[in-house]
Amino acid sequence: MRNLITDVPGVLVGNAHDPRLASGVTVALLDGASSVSCAVLGGAPGTRETDLLQPEAMASGADAVVLSGGSVFGLDAAAGAQAWLREQGRGFAFAGVRVPLVAGTICFDLLNGGDKDWGRYPPYRELGYEAAAAACDAFAIGSVGGGHGATTFDLKGGLGSASGVTPGGFRVGALVVVNAVASAVIGGGPRFWAGALEEGDEFGGLGLPERITPEMRVLDWKGRARAGHPGTTIALVATDAALDKAGARRLALAAGGGLHKALRFAAALTDGDAVFAAAMDRARRPADVQAQIEIGAAAGDCLARAIARGVFAATALPFPGAPPAWRDKFSA
Amino acid sequence: MRNLITDVPGVLVGNAHDPRLASGVTVALLDGASSVSCAVLGGAPGTRETDLLQPEAMASGADAVVLSGGSVFGLDAAAGAQAWLREQGRGFAFAGVRVPLVAGTICFDLLNGGDKDWGRYPPYRELGYEAAAAACDAFAIGSVGGGHGATTFDLKGGLGSASGVTPGGFRVGALVVVNAVASAVIGGGPRFWAGALEEGDEFGGLGLPERITPEMRVLDWKGRARAGHPGTTIALVATDAALDKAGARRLALAAGGGLHKALRFAAALTDGDAVFAAAMDRARRPADVQAQIEIGAAAGDCLARAIARGVFAATALPFPGAPPAWRDKFSA
Repeated sequence: MRNLITDVPGVLVGNAHDPRLASGVTVALLDGASSVSCAVLGGAPGTRETDLLQPEAMASGADAVVLSGGSVFGLDAAAGAQAWLREQGRGFAFAGVRVPLVAGTICFDLLNGGDKDWGRYPPYRELGYEAAAAACDAFAIGSVGGGHGATTFDLKGGLGSASGVTPGGFRVGALVVVNAVASAVIGGGPRFWAGALEEGDEFGGLGLPERITPEMRVLDWKGRARAGHPGTTIALVATDAALDKAGARRLALAAGGGLHKALRFAAALTDGDAVFAAAMDRARRPADVQAQIEIGAAAGDCLARAIARGVFAATALPFPGAPPAWRDKFSA
Repeated sequence: MRNLITDVPGVLVGNAHDPRLASGVTVALLDGASSVSCAVLGGAPGTRETDLLQPEAMASGADAVVLSGGSVFGLDAAAGAQAWLREQGRGFAFAGVRVPLVAGTICFDLLNGGDKDWGRYPPYRELGYEAAAAACDAFAIGSVGGGHGATTFDLKGGLGSASGVTPGGFRVGALVVVNAVASAVIGGGPRFWAGALEEGDEFGGLGLPERITPEMRVLDWKGRARAGHPGTTIALVATDAALDKAGARRLALAAGGGLHKALRFAAALTDGDAVFAAAMDRARRPADVQAQIEIGAAAGDCLARAIARGVFAATALPFPGAPPAWRDKFSA
């Protein structure tokens, strides 16, 4: 186990980013998924192919999920992943042609100091292709891929991932670009809101403060400092269970709890928080409702841990005024 | 301030319950709301008039929201509240008649030891009438009203409430029947998952464990002990801001984070977790997006606190095998 979403068989993850742009793309390839669905939780989402992922829509889901920087311009990243999948002959079989289905969502990193003066077309399509081509099981987390330019309210954000096993023996994993409007740490200190769920010392092992004062839980977020400044936490969770699309949507909804557990708050008007969910097996159905509930709850825990791990692993952007990385602020 | 949802002007709350039935009804009267909406988060909801509360539906919302025990039979409680409102001449004016709009949701308390052998029709309609007639601003919490027969995984549940003020000066409040599938306390001990958000010692002032071990966060819930046994946490949040219906739905979605923060997990396949949201002023619009975000985040905090307060205030049911009350298990 790598403590990455790729511990769920069939999921591979690739990253690509451009330091000058200060943004990038993460692509999760989903090989053999029984179903993929999603839950859009925030009030300012940017999405592609999410209608196709609804239980009442056709097809079982998607061949890949893209988590991109670049705000609305990053929606192009799916086209790059799609081109790569087409070259591999992958996709939904349709009377002799292959139609690669790629869903995606983006986060707002347009004001992070990077050079966004890209001319007519943004570079996300090519970054999406690169990320898909780079997909592997031992990918990096932190300031990479879609998380390269990500920030939280007070610290550098990043790409996070984590995995776990349910009591019933199903694997679950989470992948997340943490570009949250709010903070992942308690009161500007080194401890994470997700501290209650930390496995080992995967994000520093600092535990929780015994008492959290009103000052430590003050409501603060990007938009207070810069009016309306948005942010978003976008995620994919996966399991090696076989679920139908409605089951995958329930998984996305249940796992969404991880956003609320790991951040001061989530699902706000100016974030585009969204969770995709992929069931990566076609035969191994949960034996009962219990097993299915465990998968949702455990995936939510994984997502919370992945958020903390993404911030913990990140390195700061080199621009004036860029928020510090956790490691710069709190590491000895 | 009473630390109750009635700190938001226009909201009154009434309780009625039957100890032999071991169930009851809570009615929140919403006088002068600019809009009421809701977000259904769980996979096994029981609801009434929630379609009318969607932003694209007619009318601004509802004159009352009912939180009832009794599972599907408790949906009748809305009829009682409606009859009471009609007698008062209240409701949506419709060419000379008054049409009281009452939305509601229920929780499953059919297996709590009470006598559910009620003959042809269940008693919830009358309990709904009684609860509406009893509405006041200084209502009780704990084992009362819709929370009378409520339980969590390991402790007696109950009716909870809390209130707060946003940095921008808006009041927010929450009302909740805590009948959760999971637990509100950490690892079966006295400390609450909502401990990070506790104001003063409103639910014991015990803070958080400094370190939460894997044993303390083991996934357990009603359904593990009794296959498929459901549970539900149903809530109303309110604010003295003026919001349109879409704004009220965003408020319900944002406040839903309180469920995830106060319970080991929420929004599962076998719960009917749902949050109603009422904007109780018609003129005082949030000045900006910031103020609106604060209302959502603060309402989520209130909901988390209300959940802990409901469990903290509850008294046990007198039946064999009934879960203990927090106060019996942990009070000196």
